[in-house]
Order: sequence, then C-alpha cells, then structure tokens
Amino acid sequence: MTDKMNVLWIMADQLRFDYLSCYGHPHLQTPHIDGLARRGVRFTNAYVQSPICGPSRMSSYTGRYCHSHGSTWNGIPLRVGEPTLGDHLREIGVRPALVGKTHMVADTKGMEWLGIDPGSTIGVTRAECGFEPFERDDGLHPYGPYDPHPEYDEFLRRHGYNSENPWEDFANSGKGEDGELLSAWLLKYSNLPANIPEELSETPYMVGRAIDFMREADDRPWLCHLSLIKPHWPYIVPAPYHSMYGLEHIIPPVRAQAEKETGHPVFMAYQRSRICRAFSRDEVRERVIPAYMGLIKQIDDQMGRLFAFMEQQGLMQNTLIAFTSDHGDYLGDHWMGEKELFHEPSVKVPLIIVDPRAAADVTRGQVRDELVEAIDLAPTFLAAFGGKPKPHILEGRDLTPLLQHRETPPNWRRYAISEYDYAVREARKFLGIAQEDARLIMARDARYKYVHAEGFRPMLFDLEADPGELKDLGTDLAFADVRERMAQAINVWARRHHNKITVTRERIEMMSSGEPRGIVIGVWDEADYADKYGRSFETRKLLGKPT
Amino acid sequence: MTDKMNVLWIMADQLRFDYLSCYGHPHLQTPHIDGLARRGVRFTNAYVQSPICGPSRMSSYTGRYCHSHGSTWNGIPLRVGEPTLGDHLREIGVRPALVGKTHMVADTKGMEWLGIDPGSTIGVTRAECGFEPFERDDGLHPYGPYDPHPEYDEFLRRHGYNSENPWEDFANSGKGEDGELLSAWLLKYSNLPANIPEELSETPYMVGRAIDFMREADDRPWLCHLSLIKPHWPYIVPAPYHSMYGLEHIIPPVRAQAEKETGHPVFMAYQRSRICRAFSRDEVRERVIPAYMGLIKQIDDQMGRLFAFMEQQGLMQNTLIAFTSDHGDYLGDHWMGEKELFHEPSVKVPLIIVDPRAAADVTRGQVRDELVEAIDLAPTFLAAFGGKPKPHILEGRDLTPLLQHRETPPNWRRYAISEYDYAVREARKFLGIAQEDARLIMARDARYKYVHAEGFRPMLFDLEADPGELKDLGTDLAFADVRERMAQAINVWARRHHNKITVTRERIEMMSSGEPRGIVIGVWDEADYADKYGRSFETRKLLGKPT
Repeated sequence: MTDKMNVLWIMADQLRFDYLSCYGHPHLQTPHIDGLARRGVRFTNAYVQSPICGPSRMSSYTGRYCHSHGSTWNGIPLRVGEPTLGDHLREIGVRPALVGKTHMVADTKGMEWLGIDPGSTIGVTRAECGFEPFERDDGLHPYGPYDPHPEYDEFLRRHGYNSENPWEDFANSGKGEDGELLSAWLLKYSNLPANIPEELSETPYMVGRAIDFMREADDRPWLCHLSLIKPHWPYIVPAPYHSMYGLEHIIPPVRAQAEKETGHPVFMAYQRSRICRAFSRDEVRERVIPAYMGLIKQIDDQMGRLFAFMEQQGLMQNTLIAFTSDHGDYLGDHWMGEKELFHEPSVKVPLIIVDPRAAADVTRGQVRDELVEAIDLAPTFLAAFGGKPKPHILEGRDLTPLLQHRETPPNWRRYAISEYDYAVREARKFLGIAQEDARLIMARDARYKYVHAEGFRPMLFDLEADPGELKDLGTDLAFADVRERMAQAINVWARRHHNKITVTRERIEMMSSGEPRGIVIGVWDEADYADKYGRSFETRKLLGKPT
Repeated sequence: MTDKMNVLWIMADQLRFDYLSCYGHPHLQTPHIDGLARRGVRFTNAYVQSPICGPSRMSSYTGRYCHSHGSTWNGIPLRVGEPTLGDHLREIGVRPALVGKTHMVADTKGMEWLGIDPGSTIGVTRAECGFEPFERDDGLHPYGPYDPHPEYDEFLRRHGYNSENPWEDFANSGKGEDGELLSAWLLKYSNLPANIPEELSETPYMVGRAIDFMREADDRPWLCHLSLIKPHWPYIVPAPYHSMYGLEHIIPPVRAQAEKETGHPVFMAYQRSRICRAFSRDEVRERVIPAYMGLIKQIDDQMGRLFAFMEQQGLMQNTLIAFTSDHGDYLGDHWMGEKELFHEPSVKVPLIIVDPRAAADVTRGQVRDELVEAIDLAPTFLAAFGGKPKPHILEGRDLTPLLQHRETPPNWRRYAISEYDYAVREARKFLGIAQEDARLIMARDARYKYVHAEGFRPMLFDLEADPGELKDLGTDLAFADVRERMAQAINVWARRHHNKITVTRERIEMMSSGEPRGIVIGVWDEADYADKYGRSFETRKLLGKPT
C-alpha cells in the first residue's frame, strides 16, 4: 500500500436500498456490489438529506443540510459562495474529479455579483459544485429546451448512432415491429430492449470514462465521483438485461388500503398526482420493475469491470470506495411512484464503504445499523486524505470511527434529518398553500420516523412494530410523547447555526479569551485594569503639544 | 422634486432608543433629530437583529437574519457570497456609498476559493459588505495589533495632532493636570473633555465626510450610509459637550434587587462579568452617562449642520432620510453594562424615517408602534429606488406602506426576532456549555418578550404589566400558554427557508407548472400522454439504421 490515498465515490441514481442482494433482494443478484460489502462496512440506516436528486446531491457535495445550502429543489442553483467538498480537497492537494451526474445548476446571478467569469477555471468549478468536470452528464437530454451537449451524444454518433438526439432515440427508446421508435418516456415500453448495443449504453459508457480518468490521473491523490445516471428513468435497458427479470421476480408492493383512508393531507395530495396513480397500477409495475432490475444488474456487472481494472492497476490497495445512491424509488409502494416523501424506499439509500487501510480490517464485512446521513461522506473523505476536520462548515460526521472500530462511537447521532420542499409540486396546489409553507422535515431515531409538515399535523411511524410504515401514528394519543420529543429534535436542529461558516471553532475559542489587545471595556481605573490584566495600564505622555 | 431619489441612512452606534428628546428623554434635547420625527415617521418598536455591532450591522446590510448570514459575532466575517443591499442597489444603477463604520471583516478564505482579488473593485466591495467605501472607519483603532490606518488619523496629524495613535491620544483621551494623557479606556476619565477641539473630533469629521460625498456625487442616485461611531465607547466627548450634563440629568437605573435573586442562568452569568459589575456602580454611571449624553448632543448638533447643508443644496426634497442605531447601551439598567441581552435598552433602537415623497405627507409626525426590524430598511430603500422586491433574499419587510398610510397594513408581522450568540463571551465559560449551545433567540410580540435560551429555561416579560422588564415570568405557571405560543413562533421562524436565495418566487411559480419540456414522468402510453398534455405524443421515426 502506497502513501497516496484515493477515493472512488460511486453514486447510482434512484437506486432503492433494498434492490441489491446484499441488502436482501431475493431475486436480484449483485455479486460485485456484494463484494464491496464483504470487504467493507454496509450501513442499513443511511439517509439522504432530501429524497430527490438535486437537493440530495447538493447536500452530499457540500456536506451540509438543505436548510443550510438552500438548494431545496432540482434546478435551484447552489449559491456560488457555498463551500464544497471540492474546495476542501483542492486545499490539501487532492483532485476532485466528476465523472457523470451532479444535477447542479450554476448560480449565474451570484457569479455576476462576484465578478466570476463562468468560462474561467473557477467559474467552471463553481458551476460544477466544486468538482473538476472530467465528464459531466446528468443523463437527461430530451428533445426540448435542454441543451447540455453531452459528450455521450457525440460518442453515440461516432459509433454510427446518428440522430438529432441519440440519447433519446437510441439509449432511451425501444423499437416497434415496423422499426418505429417507442420512447421509454412512456412506461408501457419499459419492457423493450433499448435500441442500442449494451456496451454503448449509458452505464458502460460512464464506467469507461471513470477508467479513462484513472488511467490519465497524474501523481496527485484524487477523488473520483463516478455518478451513474441509472437506474433513474427513463426506465429501459438494453439486451440482454431487458429480459433477465420477469413477473416472478417482482416483490409485492408494500401498501395497504388503510393508508388511503387515514392518510396525511400531504400524503393524500401526492396520491392524486398522475405519477402515483400510475405506479399504483400493476401493469406499470410489471413493465417498469423488470427494467429497473435490469439496469441495476447492468450496474453490478459494470462494477465488476471497474473493480477488475482497478485490481489490475493496483488501485484497490489505496482507494477508499464508497457505493451509494442519491435517493430511492417507491415503485408503487405506499401507492406512490418516484420519491419525494419519507418512506424507507424513498429516503433510505444503500451505503457501502470499503476502507483499504489496515486499521479497517476489524470491520470488514460488518453490517452497521447506526443512523448515517449522506452528508457524512464529505467529512469522511476529507479525513481519508488527512484533511483537518471542518465542523463549522461540514455538518455531517466523519464515519472513519465506524470503519475502523466495531463498536458504536460514544455520542453518535440520535436523529437523522431529511427535508423536502414541495413548493414546485402539484401537491402544493392541491393543498392550496403558500410556497414557503410547502415544507417537510423528517427526523428518524433508532425506532421512530417522525415527519413535520409545516401547517399540518405530523406523521409518525414505529419502524419496530410496523417496518412497512403502513400505520401512521401521527394522531394516536398513545404516542404524544414520542411526537413531542421528535418535534423538539427537529426544532433544536433548525435553531442551530447553519451558516456560521467563516470561523473555525478553534478561532472562536481564541476569541473567547477576552477583548482584542488594546480594547478595554468596563474598567474603572488603573487599579481595576491591573486587577483584570495582571499588568499596569500603560499611561502615555503627550509627545509634545499639538503644533 | 426631481425624479432622482437618494437615501441618507444615518446610523449612530450604541445609541439607546430613549436618549433622544423625541423618544422622551427628559433632559437631553435633540431638536434636529426631533425635527426628523416631525417631518417623518417615528417607530417606537424597532428592534435590531442582534444586540451587538457586527451581527446587527451584517443583518442591516444584508436585510437578513443572523441565522441566515451566519456572521453572529463581531469579527466573524460575512460570507463572501452573501448578497448585500449594495449588490441590489448597484444592479439598478444606485451608488451605495459608505461613510463611517461597518464592523465588517472580509471573508478572505471565501474570496480565495472564489479567486477574488481582495484589491480588486469587487474584492473591496465584498470586504465592505457591498458598499463602496467612500470612507471606512470603524472608530476603533487602539494601540495594539489593529492596523486599520484610518484616514481620520492622517486628518488629525495634518492638523498638528501628531502621535503614533492620534485617535487614542487626542480624540479618545483626556489630559491630567500635568499634561499627562488620561485614557478614556478607563471609565473614571469619562468626565474629562477629550484632548481635542470639538470640530476635529470624530462625529464632526465623519459628518463632514458625508457632506464631501454629497458635494462630489455625480448624476447617479445614491444611498449614503453615514455610520457614526459615537456614542459608542470610549466614552469621552470634547468641550463644551463634556460639561453639559451633570448628576441631575442622569435618569435613575431601571433595576431591581429581585432580578438578582430570581435571575435566569444566562442573565446571572452576565452579572458576574466585570462590565456588568462596573455599570452596577453609581460612580461609573455618574462619569459615563453625562459623557454619553454629550456625545449624543454633539451628534444632534452635527445633524443640524448636515441638514442645513442638504437644505441649501436642495437635497431635502429628494432624499429619504433614515436615522437609527445598531443597538443600545444598558448603562447600568438591569445591573448590566454594554448590550448583548434583550432588555429594551439593549435591543430596541430609535428609528425615524423621513420620506420626502408627497405620498408620505399623510404620515408626517406619526408615531407608530408596529413591530419593526432593522432588516426592514434594506427592502424599504430598495423600494424607494424603484427596485423589484426580493423576498427570496431580503427577509425584512418594506416599510413604505407604513410611511405612506396611517393604518397598519393587513398581516403585519406579529413577532420581531433578534438573536445573540455568546459563544465567545465569558458568560459561556461561567456556564460551562459548548460553543454551539451559547445561543439566545428573542421573540417580541405586541405584549410579551420571550427569550429562548438553548439548554436553559426561557425568559418572559409582560411589557404591558411590567414595562421595566423587572419580573421574569419564565417559570410562572400562569404564563405557560404564552411561553408555548412564543416558543412556537421561534421554531416556525427557525424552520423556514433562510438560504433559498438563488430563485425568485416567480420562478418557483413557473417551475410549479410541471416538468420541463421534454421530460415525461409517470405516463403510461400515448393516450395517457394526450390526456395529460392535451396533445399527441410525438413519435419519431428512426432516421435510418445506425451506420
């Protein structure tokens, strides 16, 4: 093992925590990802800071809550002045490279105020949430006003897949009997093979780009954020993956009629949306889930390819590998599609970390149930590179103690927090509330999950008695104490300083030692001064009369 | 009246709300400031966002709560990316000029991350919280590690007041019988005349600089922030002001023995400090208060000079004038010195606004008791210049309706909020608590003042029954409901979005209208698509086989 440390941070998009064999899926075998779990630590209670791409990622990339960074929905730019993991790494000589998706939108207004040229190196870095964009691809380039010019389109064209939008026409469409395109924007066609050879589809392409990065990397230690855009929709996968899973492999939905009858107003408003109505139908699940599983199987195979390459290059011994997702996918559970609310299939993610250092040998294969947040990764990576902790900026916790000791560290967090801003969603319109009131905050402790809904009653689930989260205890008198305790946990969290980020705690301690030299407050006379400072007040003579 | 609008924003430092004759002081006549009140609106319930210079000012300059901007104590740099009033004004062609104090410390680390040269125009602006520094002078340049090189020192030297530190030796010291310097850092010497002719002291100097600015101003509309450093300590004033007030003019302290017996732990910890012990002594009050009053009287006279100049230049007709302070001064009330806690003498400030527009004629001379916050000034000024409101950034309320209508606008705020971070204070050490727990949040409604103290019981005062705030109802069972209601007001405020500042509310409305064009989620087939979008799904033909 060399002194140089690297970090490979793999993030799948919209991957449920329970759709991997190491997390218990009965039919989806993911041996390469399972291999990570065998060699590292697998977390069973890892929560994202918001169950939707953009905010979740902005939290992961800054190590800060949505409440702190303010990018609370897709398309809301991350403030230009928000410090990122990339900034912290560059400071200590680490190259933070992006290969894939971030969902970042640049804060052009803020850049203008600060005179930052978007085309400059710093401008590009800001626009990529602190990363060096080795390859940026959000995996969303439909026909329409989007114009991201992804390299992937050029790649497809170079391979002869010529069209105005090869991403949509080939990688994300199937083909009908008469050769017509059948777009995977329509869920009905999710069972078709994508109109492209498997090796040219998005996951192998992006894994190949990560391999390119590692080949080309210079002597600097690096963090490579391999950010895959699958199994996120459009749900379609090339052969042979499209036909690997059938109806017999679909887990029954976790849902109950009672949920519709006693449901929370916000939950009920979501139920009215087209998405939720669609995923409540069996035919949608039956087309989508096999494709979703195929996409995951393809990722696992590509992980095999990547790890084999790294093994061969000797990178496995000095690369910390984290595998996770930005949020889950309801897939019809709780009569929901997509994500956005806080049931486990939406807000919980897989998280596996392999720490190659000998100190981590004691935890290899360990499965841990501590409450972990996605924002814990930034301080963990910073620590892996030997960076100084920055608790005044990074709000997550360094996971190194959980990677290198089998016991739970003292004073580990008691509550995991996640947030969701539904200001832009039709659920808000159904409820007829103001933008600023469209807020949800989840607190999850060892047993309960509590959801604060601004202006509405809370939701509460007892995960021990009701792991399926089918019984909302939000109004059950027997649980008033639990609700009160969890509401207070959220309030304590909300009242905290989230933006006191320009001074370290050490500096605050220094400032606590009294007024700056030369400033004297509340001192009566020379004797009082001597008593306070332990030295005489320095009386000055006039240096002569004013001239 | 011309079309061009200007704003003169006068801020005194550490000026209590009740030390002006228009606010009821029985002995201190301030006719020029009173004249503003006659011509404008005088607010009797104006609160600063933190009862200490730096955070209060950073809130005023950004229009945002301390919780939002994070500069929670003196010397904690304002984040480089925090938008300021200056940014908003420059956008619409207004020149935001600073003449005097800001207490700003530059976020050099943030500037480094963003590649901003501190010497560049933008760098200087950032380091001056958005202002163009026509003259920056924090009025604090003691002997010691500070090295601000204020122009004022050069000014004194040019007038023959030569020494290493003429600010301290002349403007802020008295002289003994043998010609020795008697520094006003020691309160005992506050009764002496400052060792300088009145016209060369700080207040006339800075008012002169504001006059220079107005003389030199070009055609652009301007906001001039005339930010005086007095009556802030060192408490000393030149002749003849040093002898204008005597013992007979000192208002008795508002304090009660009971406060010491039933006091709140944080309040009690403050009582232990040297400052509070000093200001509890009559001899300290008797030396300091006449000097403090003299400094205010001098300010009032200088206001007369300034307004006469403006009158003569025709500026009165098109200049909105706001007169306020950054916080008060206990002066021994409640056994306290300085500021920092939330009793009225500390957290309430004078606020008088003269709006020259005809629309404001209906309110001239009005005294208003609505709850007003210092952060209301930024949106008020922006509106005066015709700028678009920016409620996604500016957290205060535009006061124009209160300047131009005699009635309280519907839905005016029910709670004023102020915060205090005592992490660096010895009170925290006395209490033995962690940095991050050293937080106080005040909510003030029409009748009550509630102070949340993290980790301790709250404080509560009934300002109707007990305007002197001598009886803390923080544990009184009869007020449990009031406490609960006010605690909830603070929690609602804390949970709000404070940093979702990169998108306007209009943009959020636009985003609410559905997925971006080209993105299709939760749609089963062509018929479902047509049902959702009211048009046919555009099926594309393959443009030929892949080549």
